[in-house]
Amino acid sequence: MSAALTPIRRALLSVSDKTGLIDLGRRLAARGVGLLSTGGSAKALREAGIAVTDVSELTGFPEIMDGRVKTLHPKVHGGLLGRRGTDDPIMAELGIAPIDLLVLNLYPFEQTVARPDCTLEQAIENIDIGGPAMLRSAAKNWADVAVLTSPDQYEDALAEIERDGGIARATRFRLAVAAFNRVSDYDGAISDYLSGLKLNEAHDAIAGHETFGGQANGRFVKLMDLRYGENPHQQAAFYRDLHPAPGTLATFRQLQGKELSFNNIADADAAWECVRSFVKPACVIVKHANPCGVAVSLEGIAKAYDLAFQTDPTSAFGGIIAFNRPVDGATARAIVERQFVEVVLAPGYADDALKAFDRKGNVRVLEIPPPPDGDLRSPHPGMNVKRVGSGLLIQTADTGMISAADLKVVTRRAPTPEQIDDLIFAWKVAKFVKSNAIVYAKHRQTIGIGAGQMSRVYSAKVAGIKAADEKLEVRGSVMASDAFFPFRDGIDAAAEAGIAAVIQPGGSMRDAEVIAAADEHDMAMVFTGMRHFRH
Amino acid sequence: MSAALTPIRRALLSVSDKTGLIDLGRRLAARGVGLLSTGGSAKALREAGIAVTDVSELTGFPEIMDGRVKTLHPKVHGGLLGRRGTDDPIMAELGIAPIDLLVLNLYPFEQTVARPDCTLEQAIENIDIGGPAMLRSAAKNWADVAVLTSPDQYEDALAEIERDGGIARATRFRLAVAAFNRVSDYDGAISDYLSGLKLNEAHDAIAGHETFGGQANGRFVKLMDLRYGENPHQQAAFYRDLHPAPGTLATFRQLQGKELSFNNIADADAAWECVRSFVKPACVIVKHANPCGVAVSLEGIAKAYDLAFQTDPTSAFGGIIAFNRPVDGATARAIVERQFVEVVLAPGYADDALKAFDRKGNVRVLEIPPPPDGDLRSPHPGMNVKRVGSGLLIQTADTGMISAADLKVVTRRAPTPEQIDDLIFAWKVAKFVKSNAIVYAKHRQTIGIGAGQMSRVYSAKVAGIKAADEKLEVRGSVMASDAFFPFRDGIDAAAEAGIAAVIQPGGSMRDAEVIAAADEHDMAMVFTGMRHFRH
Repeated sequence: MSAALTPIRRALLSVSDKTGLIDLGRRLAARGVGLLSTGGSAKALREAGIAVTDVSELTGFPEIMDGRVKTLHPKVHGGLLGRRGTDDPIMAELGIAPIDLLVLNLYPFEQTVARPDCTLEQAIENIDIGGPAMLRSAAKNWADVAVLTSPDQYEDALAEIERDGGIARATRFRLAVAAFNRVSDYDGAISDYLSGLKLNEAHDAIAGHETFGGQANGRFVKLMDLRYGENPHQQAAFYRDLHPAPGTLATFRQLQGKELSFNNIADADAAWECVRSFVKPACVIVKHANPCGVAVSLEGIAKAYDLAFQTDPTSAFGGIIAFNRPVDGATARAIVERQFVEVVLAPGYADDALKAFDRKGNVRVLEIPPPPDGDLRSPHPGMNVKRVGSGLLIQTADTGMISAADLKVVTRRAPTPEQIDDLIFAWKVAKFVKSNAIVYAKHRQTIGIGAGQMSRVYSAKVAGIKAADEKLEVRGSVMASDAFFPFRDGIDAAAEAGIAAVIQPGGSMRDAEVIAAADEHDMAMVFTGMRHFRH
Repeated sequence: MSAALTPIRRALLSVSDKTGLIDLGRRLAARGVGLLSTGGSAKALREAGIAVTDVSELTGFPEIMDGRVKTLHPKVHGGLLGRRGTDDPIMAELGIAPIDLLVLNLYPFEQTVARPDCTLEQAIENIDIGGPAMLRSAAKNWADVAVLTSPDQYEDALAEIERDGGIARATRFRLAVAAFNRVSDYDGAISDYLSGLKLNEAHDAIAGHETFGGQANGRFVKLMDLRYGENPHQQAAFYRDLHPAPGTLATFRQLQGKELSFNNIADADAAWECVRSFVKPACVIVKHANPCGVAVSLEGIAKAYDLAFQTDPTSAFGGIIAFNRPVDGATARAIVERQFVEVVLAPGYADDALKAFDRKGNVRVLEIPPPPDGDLRSPHPGMNVKRVGSGLLIQTADTGMISAADLKVVTRRAPTPEQIDDLIFAWKVAKFVKSNAIVYAKHRQTIGIGAGQMSRVYSAKVAGIKAADEKLEVRGSVMASDAFFPFRDGIDAAAEAGIAAVIQPGGSMRDAEVIAAADEHDMAMVFTGMRHFRH
């Protein structure tokens, strides 16, 4: 068995990111570690007065083909792959010196190909062959070799070497796993890019890119194991993208409370994405993946919470509550005094808000740092996925947004400015309600939410029943429908309930009939031209 | 620019899967192609009487370290990476002979580590270093080199060489993309495995495996681009696992009809997974991700369809219809005569069924081949995912199943055998209804389905309203609830509607109160001990 501690006698340094390189080289050299290097890394080290040996000197083979072949040599790979103890004789015989530490980071391929003017030749030339091969050799031989793939690993490694004279076996294993993860990221990025390339007929230049390549390589980092999945008999974990978009749930900090569950996270995402779509102070309460109460108030989030709660107090019990403003003490106290809450989300918390939540220690309080530009509404285009058996549906996220200017008034009566405000409010809520979605709203408060029905009429019925049960007045409210009304019956029923204005995508074969119905009832109706199914 | 056609003068053959190797070697040799090879491939070729040169002869460097280092040599990689035209002088000077064709397949790492007794040493030793490096070199230099990674590519490549004297540029690009895809698969598998390994304290043996590793590397193959996503302003594509589980939707064959949409596929999966959970002839109709009618009939699927349709004819319009038996002509005719249908799914179709569907040419008719054991109910454990912003929730699929023996009768009255049948039927349906889910059923027919509500009471209300609207008699029906009743109100309401027996997980703090309510109403109630949230 190999030693628990690898003494570092010889290191090979070859990095694209020069951060920390000089300090690393100096401290290794100070301990008498022999340094091997290549190209730009060697130059930088020498300029800092640190002695290094070129790899070509080690191999006795020149760097050729503009750098395509420089480290792909048995003296390098034998030095990385040789098993100390087992392979010592052959290494001695062939003059292969063991390399105990590899410091190598790859130039991010994604950055090269993200440039709009990146040519086919540039993309191909940026595919590193020697680097991943060395990373894989060193990581495979982790029992004897340590491998560093990122500057943020240097300090710990140096500290370990300076304290113990080498790098421990446990550390080497961890570093090897990180190296194989990095190689997988790198090769995944190449596969994603190339399998989505469209070349011209001569196959010598890029003709275009497909949004969806022939192979999709997801790469996710585990944030935490979860106690269980959607149900207790399912196992689960929470991952995030290698580079999560700022302002999204995955960047959360948990300030207090029990550990998050699978359903907490799913619901928290729905609540957060909905609340961040509003400009004014807003509150969204989510239960079972649906908003069960949403409100916007110019008076602030305390009032918004109060209004959102009124929509459906029964469902709000044990819900997830999200705000698009930092939570103040009064709002926090109102929540904990009034209801059982699973999760609270906000871009920040006042000290006395945290004090208030602290009295209910189980409540999970999450802070989502706003994006760098401070605008929570910054879109974060990304990919959405839906698993279907052994299949995967991948789609661009639904970042569709409409404003008052996009609305097309299709009825004789036009909505009033107040109704337009309410229509857009209701529309934003409907986007986050499971289809078929019907939302009744008034004064920027949800009055009734009809979610997840297999026919639109039933969603409207449910919204009406809920409003009536909570004694909320539908008369004078507006209605949003996430997709078009296929028949006039939905409009007739809405008119009967007292709905004064409607927002919907339009686009039904029977739009004329639906518009005529609205005109008959003297309602105002606007078309968005955009649908928001969410299943 | 490199030639449109690469003439093949020298090929390197190094394969783990020997399928087709001899034929390939023979036909290449017959055209005067010089063959280089290593280890087992060289041996197999020589035994077949085909002359090959060992790579060690080419490099002048022995194969060392039990094969760890044999091809990691500039004469190999220079031969693969050298740019014809540009690098000819240096290749001539250093005696590097161009290699025009690389035939290399990697031993599947997944198979090694899937063995329950696979040790840490075996796993590590099975990480191929030289193979991926050569694949990446050859694929990078696709402008001059062709690379084959799988025996199923040989015949086309040989045909092209024998017909045209070489391999065309377009083919070489396609093969290079396939090679980078393969390398990404390989490195993804290593990352998945290693990042989920738990070692013992000495870090010299495997102590266990985490279900969810530190990095998750998804690898999906595109089946088709879709016209759009869940909504028209979203782009989308349908992918499947590299190795899809038999019997799942992703293995479908489309026999006729318009192209599938994103929502078609999502709904088809729900319908298929639900219908395949039944033993007897069954029909499931899905709309907006929810079953809107389900029935089982010993008389066959025509009757099952008729009963399923009756649950909610409005929602069934434009629905997805799935069967767990091959579709006969009578059933197909009944469907197309009665309703507009988007997709039909079944394990097979009679000729006259296809004839009947042919009259409605837009109907998408999908055949899902049954698994090899013929049992559609074979579980296919896999991973389910839910995207949350920049995060990804990963969980094991909900393959939980209960049978009559698992049921715990908690009331004074026990369900009759007929009620037990209906309870299990309703339970299976509830598993596929969006939460909160309430299903009323009688004689293995859904009577009312309450889906997707934020409180359980409303799901029960919705089920009751739907039954009443379709004039289906609730009295004497059973009720399934996907999660426990938190209060007795749900039971009281069910009793009032005429529900005679209830199935639910149990586990509420107020189970005693809920059971007492059922006893008061002289209902039978059973607990499953298993919840089926589905959001």
